[in-house]
Amino acid sequence: MLGTSFIGYSRGASVGPFSSAINPATQEAMEPPYASPTAQEVETAVQLAAKAFPVYRNLPAATRATFLRTIASEIEAVADAIAARGCAETGLPEARLRGETGRTVGQLRLFASMLDEGSWVDARIEHAQPERTPIPKVDIRSMLRPLGPVVVFCASNFPLAYSVAGGDSASALAVGCPVIVKAHSSHPGTSEIVAQAVIKAAQQCGMPEGVFSVLYGSGVTVGGALVKHPAIKAVGFTGSHKGGRALMDLAAARPEPIPVYAEMSSINPVVMMPEVLAQKAVTLADGFFQSLTLGVGQFCTNPGLLLLPSGSEADFIAALQEKIATAATGTMLNAGICKAYQEATAATAAHPGVTTIASAQAAAAGQATPTVFLCSAETFLSSSALCDEMFGPASLIITGTMEQFLTIAEALEGQLTASVHGTEGDFATAGPLLEILERKAGRLIFNGFPTGVEVCHSMVHGGPYPSTSDGRSTSVGTMAAFRFTRPVAWQNTPDALLPDELKENNPLGIPRLVDGKHC
Amino acid sequence: MLGTSFIGYSRGASVGPFSSAINPATQEAMEPPYASPTAQEVETAVQLAAKAFPVYRNLPAATRATFLRTIASEIEAVADAIAARGCAETGLPEARLRGETGRTVGQLRLFASMLDEGSWVDARIEHAQPERTPIPKVDIRSMLRPLGPVVVFCASNFPLAYSVAGGDSASALAVGCPVIVKAHSSHPGTSEIVAQAVIKAAQQCGMPEGVFSVLYGSGVTVGGALVKHPAIKAVGFTGSHKGGRALMDLAAARPEPIPVYAEMSSINPVVMMPEVLAQKAVTLADGFFQSLTLGVGQFCTNPGLLLLPSGSEADFIAALQEKIATAATGTMLNAGICKAYQEATAATAAHPGVTTIASAQAAAAGQATPTVFLCSAETFLSSSALCDEMFGPASLIITGTMEQFLTIAEALEGQLTASVHGTEGDFATAGPLLEILERKAGRLIFNGFPTGVEVCHSMVHGGPYPSTSDGRSTSVGTMAAFRFTRPVAWQNTPDALLPDELKENNPLGIPRLVDGKHC
Repeated sequence: MLGTSFIGYSRGASVGPFSSAINPATQEAMEPPYASPTAQEVETAVQLAAKAFPVYRNLPAATRATFLRTIASEIEAVADAIAARGCAETGLPEARLRGETGRTVGQLRLFASMLDEGSWVDARIEHAQPERTPIPKVDIRSMLRPLGPVVVFCASNFPLAYSVAGGDSASALAVGCPVIVKAHSSHPGTSEIVAQAVIKAAQQCGMPEGVFSVLYGSGVTVGGALVKHPAIKAVGFTGSHKGGRALMDLAAARPEPIPVYAEMSSINPVVMMPEVLAQKAVTLADGFFQSLTLGVGQFCTNPGLLLLPSGSEADFIAALQEKIATAATGTMLNAGICKAYQEATAATAAHPGVTTIASAQAAAAGQATPTVFLCSAETFLSSSALCDEMFGPASLIITGTMEQFLTIAEALEGQLTASVHGTEGDFATAGPLLEILERKAGRLIFNGFPTGVEVCHSMVHGGPYPSTSDGRSTSVGTMAAFRFTRPVAWQNTPDALLPDELKENNPLGIPRLVDGKHC
Repeated sequence: MLGTSFIGYSRGASVGPFSSAINPATQEAMEPPYASPTAQEVETAVQLAAKAFPVYRNLPAATRATFLRTIASEIEAVADAIAARGCAETGLPEARLRGETGRTVGQLRLFASMLDEGSWVDARIEHAQPERTPIPKVDIRSMLRPLGPVVVFCASNFPLAYSVAGGDSASALAVGCPVIVKAHSSHPGTSEIVAQAVIKAAQQCGMPEGVFSVLYGSGVTVGGALVKHPAIKAVGFTGSHKGGRALMDLAAARPEPIPVYAEMSSINPVVMMPEVLAQKAVTLADGFFQSLTLGVGQFCTNPGLLLLPSGSEADFIAALQEKIATAATGTMLNAGICKAYQEATAATAAHPGVTTIASAQAAAAGQATPTVFLCSAETFLSSSALCDEMFGPASLIITGTMEQFLTIAEALEGQLTASVHGTEGDFATAGPLLEILERKAGRLIFNGFPTGVEVCHSMVHGGPYPSTSDGRSTSVGTMAAFRFTRPVAWQNTPDALLPDELKENNPLGIPRLVDGKHC
């Protein structure tokens, strides 16, 4: 491992400033130190991406699909190295690293299959009607085309599936955008292993240099320079609300504003209705506990808010307390996240009207203690601070009436998910609640918990602000590809000059909308 | 005519400040004076829209389609009044007003047919696979849902097709968003006639009050208050770069940023290649002249930049000069636009290296003189001021080599359109030019001129910034509907609680993507 950035097919200079990964379980710095790229190296990476764009975007979709599949294979070939380094850098268990590697290569292959199938370009053809009166109709054809070079900021909590070759990179590369990755300082070594795999795949597939670069260094300095660069046309980010909003503001203030797709913060409300709670309190408590503590609670879909109808909550709470009391503490991803978790839970614990009703044994340094709080609907509605995400295995239970829950739901900010548990009888009365939740969330879950985000064609992992920067998008699933595209129309164009997707005889055999009809 | 705002189904108070339409042909103020809404009236309009949203968005698509068709019929019923008042307010000829009325009702009906067909919601279904290992697959279904109340700013240059019941309003209403229109001060009377037709249709169709309001008053005060209001979820705008950017900045600075779809400025480059220019100079000059002077040049697709290969340009220029010399001057939409046109053309005329090669007879007050300028590629490349739009019947011709045109194309900002004229032989060498133009524009036109924007499923009337605020969108054609939507996913949802579009037995019979296959 070299500890330097990937500037196209070259590596950066090993000059400072340096920073090292810290093993969160031991708090020890790991070798090698990682060098921040120089300003010139950042510029070179952008220029290479800009130069690669006209070439890369015009490659046949099948060639880009092969590239994605080759990346997947090259990542699988280094799965052992990823697992070893990844566990040490993130504190996550090996099974999680291996599972996430599987998800990452699966994602790459899903986008490749999307390219093979071809309908994602939304090809539309309207034939000319030269005889139409009063004005002849011209021939107009349109399809989605890539925006340009994309900057991807890696997530701390997904060292693979939302980092170097994760969903943002895969979706941007799929549609024809070169990618510059800003690696996360928590797992630079894992990032280097994956970056090597991507670069190897790019060279093997004859991709233009600059189609992919990975830069280390500070998010503010290196990341900020990338987001402000005129050649960059979109940004993908997974992280905190503060970080995401800073990027949004930077992008909006550019002479040419660009889209930022930031997946930020969410408390993922879960509502349990009276009948189901009476029938299945213990089962529900177990399911909630599993979702709350999965991955030490470090998921954007962690259930941070639970609404329980007053009078039906006792058995559920007792069962949950029992689970939490004997729950293992877990190593968090890094010291900053751990500190933020401790501060957030301490603030909630100290909040007037809030009771800590369940907490695991005290945690060692770097570890998180699963914790559950309780307050009334009135208390919750009186303080916006209680809506803040506590990133980690903590949740706030609100007890109140279903009527009060409507008021709470209406008061919530945008969320990635909203979950409702109910029987058929419960759901018969849930209309008004569901109506509100649908306006607040990207994904509505019935009789399930929010963790676990299926990577598929219909997934929406997005939601109104501030859960994401742009509720019109998803960062998981094939619809994520739309983020990095724009429609382009061709008018009265000789067939030879049209993209294959729009040629009259449909050489790629893709589904198209022709004169208003799907065929 | 009352001269007051439409606040849901009520009319605003007739208290000041007032402003009147000015007939641009006579410079006379027209009756009645139009009252700015009070701050309370603005708030009421927004609250009514917010209250209408949950009702309106859940109406069956067929009911919204009926509403759009009823609006169209009600507008047709007042076509004579529109033509009379519209001509007086805009200086546009009656044929244009009647043609634009036809376009407006056609647009409304096209969106209605989009609703009938149903594929626009992008319904996606992935069935559960409970036996899948290692993790069972859940049932996930998604479709596009409306964003919420939308503010539409009317265009000065399209008193019907991009005003009260124009493309922005039609596309927002189609997908289930209530609309608050900020009327344009140039044509308040036309706006009132159309607003009455829309309100009549809304009441006739039993729409919830607040689905549609129309406010008069200042863009900064009334418009700004609307854009900043937390209940507003998106903005549509057609107008100047300055106005559009101000709205973008306002929207980006909100606690919850919202999308702004502003269609702003474009110089719509036209390139004529050597062989076609040699063969058809006079025909091309005639076509160019028609496009340049159509509607007194007051189209966002007006051809403001023409690239002619040095050595082949003489016949074209001579023919164009002859046309321009005898061209009629025309009344511009309003005094502000006329003043801006005179200033812009004066600045270009005074620019070092620029020659005024053709100009019509001197114009009367309020009128525009068609004007053509000429400069070298070197001059153009040395001054960014020459890239500025001159809104009206003026264009700048650049002569140079095809090589220089590549540099010019690369230097251009984002454009709504780019047009190339060529023979088969010309096009055989046009690859590099087309590659650049495709990155710069929303629509590529072959052997045609940019004016005339077909309203259809494949139209892209958008383009990279600054031609629009958001190159990922179009403001014309059915794809305009996507601007006001976001995807929502339903997980493991009882069939009865799903929208009809996602129910298992497909009661609406719409095309859907089921388990990755179109059916």
